[in-house]
Amino acid sequence: MGKLKIGVIGLGGRGRFHAEMLASMSKDASFPCELEVVALCDVYQDRLEAAAAAVKEKTGAMPSAYTNENEFLNHEKLQAIIVATSWQTHISIAAKAMKKGIRPAIECGGASNLDECFKLVSAYEDTGIPCMFLENCNYGRDEMALLNMTQKGVFGELIHIQCGYQHDLRTIAQSWEHRHYRLDHHIHRNGEFYPMHGLGPMMKLLKIFNGNRFVSLVSISSKARGIKEWAKEHLPADHHIQNKTINQGDIITTVLKTSNGETLLLTHDTTLPRPYSRGGRVQGTKGIWMEDNASIYIEGVSPSHTWENFHDFIEKHGYEHPTWAQYQKDGVKEGYDGHGGMDYLVVREFAKSAAEASEPPVDTYEAALLACITPLSEKSISLGSHPVEIPDFTHGLYMTR
Amino acid sequence: MGKLKIGVIGLGGRGRFHAEMLASMSKDASFPCELEVVALCDVYQDRLEAAAAAVKEKTGAMPSAYTNENEFLNHEKLQAIIVATSWQTHISIAAKAMKKGIRPAIECGGASNLDECFKLVSAYEDTGIPCMFLENCNYGRDEMALLNMTQKGVFGELIHIQCGYQHDLRTIAQSWEHRHYRLDHHIHRNGEFYPMHGLGPMMKLLKIFNGNRFVSLVSISSKARGIKEWAKEHLPADHHIQNKTINQGDIITTVLKTSNGETLLLTHDTTLPRPYSRGGRVQGTKGIWMEDNASIYIEGVSPSHTWENFHDFIEKHGYEHPTWAQYQKDGVKEGYDGHGGMDYLVVREFAKSAAEASEPPVDTYEAALLACITPLSEKSISLGSHPVEIPDFTHGLYMTR
Repeated sequence: MGKLKIGVIGLGGRGRFHAEMLASMSKDASFPCELEVVALCDVYQDRLEAAAAAVKEKTGAMPSAYTNENEFLNHEKLQAIIVATSWQTHISIAAKAMKKGIRPAIECGGASNLDECFKLVSAYEDTGIPCMFLENCNYGRDEMALLNMTQKGVFGELIHIQCGYQHDLRTIAQSWEHRHYRLDHHIHRNGEFYPMHGLGPMMKLLKIFNGNRFVSLVSISSKARGIKEWAKEHLPADHHIQNKTINQGDIITTVLKTSNGETLLLTHDTTLPRPYSRGGRVQGTKGIWMEDNASIYIEGVSPSHTWENFHDFIEKHGYEHPTWAQYQKDGVKEGYDGHGGMDYLVVREFAKSAAEASEPPVDTYEAALLACITPLSEKSISLGSHPVEIPDFTHGLYMTR
Repeated sequence: MGKLKIGVIGLGGRGRFHAEMLASMSKDASFPCELEVVALCDVYQDRLEAAAAAVKEKTGAMPSAYTNENEFLNHEKLQAIIVATSWQTHISIAAKAMKKGIRPAIECGGASNLDECFKLVSAYEDTGIPCMFLENCNYGRDEMALLNMTQKGVFGELIHIQCGYQHDLRTIAQSWEHRHYRLDHHIHRNGEFYPMHGLGPMMKLLKIFNGNRFVSLVSISSKARGIKEWAKEHLPADHHIQNKTINQGDIITTVLKTSNGETLLLTHDTTLPRPYSRGGRVQGTKGIWMEDNASIYIEGVSPSHTWENFHDFIEKHGYEHPTWAQYQKDGVKEGYDGHGGMDYLVVREFAKSAAEASEPPVDTYEAALLACITPLSEKSISLGSHPVEIPDFTHGLYMTR
């Protein structure tokens, strides 16, 4: 395949980060495949120019720069792209790319409706070009150790999982000042906007679409107070937010059920003051792990009814995931991100799979599933927390994949 | 009123404990009212005789002893009773007592159906005799500090609560050997059996039936594995449990919504290996408390995005509840129970309210509400996690009480 010709569309904070990281990777002799950042796209000229200049500074070569997504996707050499645009456009851009033979990786974000998710699957099945969901938390050190442990049966049979996105983002009251879109969703929608950081890794533990699937969910919304209360205290009385109504509840609780009988509790909590946590919990017939007290209890291993420190436990029993053990030997690339090195891993795995033309580690069916939770949770809430079916995007293939 | 003539019905572990604690209270000159343990009842003669002898040993007087509940309730002097029988009989015995002018306090347990709960309310409204729900966790030190703090507005406006009963009770596989009933419920039912230890205190924080009420719930059940797996490892191959089917899921997740827009997440987790926790979380527009990391974060008070130790915080800011501050001065009665002294407080408050003929601190409407969660969660689960209405037992009085 030679050098993988790659591009980035959407050059806000996250897309700019990807453009620069890919540029660095393209100059890194130890990177497992050869890369070339050939094209960038953003609707804003200033962002586009700044990102292109940053790539040129790292690589010596100026990438092609586009403000029009169709022109970007028509770039003759493009083989893979990262889609880091606004949530609403991830899937449509990905599907267009796939139809042109370009492999997309979509950044985090939920779909606007269920139909989009089916279209993504169709684009894959029609073209054979897969779409990766770029879930960085799948490569978190703790998440990978947990995956390793569940594969070794440490928790026994899995019964219940908890996870979520609990991150104080009240400054999104000022989204518009930064040309960001998140506030719009809080004004107009009410649902589980951001399930993927919890759900992505936990889906792997539950073997979703590999012998298991989610069958239904219910979502429940609390009232919405956080953004308005914050804005009242921190922004001028004539700021545009003061007269807006926020529909998105401060806490969205969603419970999913699998065909194998596990339950998964998901919490969206981004508009109240709190320390960051993904609220992880993994519970099986042999024990339990909890993120919030950084603890684990395994029957017959831990002292009776007593929590043990999770990281000490991992070290003592050798449960580090092989990928992370190797990553530590090679040197964790923390310099790339504020996320402990996992951004490097997830993009490396995308680039590798694209260069090798193999299935990406979070594949198109999983991407559709991660994206569909948002519209399905909106539907459940709009129907008074009615249970809602979660489709089998694999149309039965999950039983034997 | 003179001495409060009190009795106990149901003399298993919990009822025997109450009989002995009441006997001790009756000999305690500092107890706020005078007590006399006049009657005991149990269907098992051996339990009855043992409890009566234990009371006589503490008080010098032998209480009347009955194996028939109607004869017990016809005891001429009886003014108040503690009902510590099996879950199925709490409400019917309480309602009978109320109709005879006897004040009941019912031990923890859920109703079998919604109709029972309405009958309990009718018994109160017809007779003027209230029924107390004997929720000891309402008198837990942390719970009372949290109540104090919410009343002082420390958390701002409440948005979301979590709580539950997470207690490894897998030895209930041997319930029948101990003439206990809990296993029957695991065989025959599937729902939130034991909401009260979490819900009781949290209802007080949410001012339920004092300007707020629960309007609906959804419950989701995981598969059931814990009891059978435990029994396979720990009990003989011909033990009666080995061929039984357990219907009760290992993890029951229930989410309640209030008329004021708060959400409350309740977890029932009693058949998997784990350290004990009621999984508390209180979250408002100003901060969050969590039981599992024993931590609190209050915006503008705690260091930015950093948890503080909850007990240090209570002490530093003087948030101990006045009842507990006094209790510590007087000497915490931990000798009575394994529950840190709260059993003494809840029974003291019941006895005081009965002696003074005042409303008990967890009143009949709250008792009906705490009891109704079990059949309503069963209904939700049986309907595929359909949302279920939670009745307003106060028929509108909650708005202005």
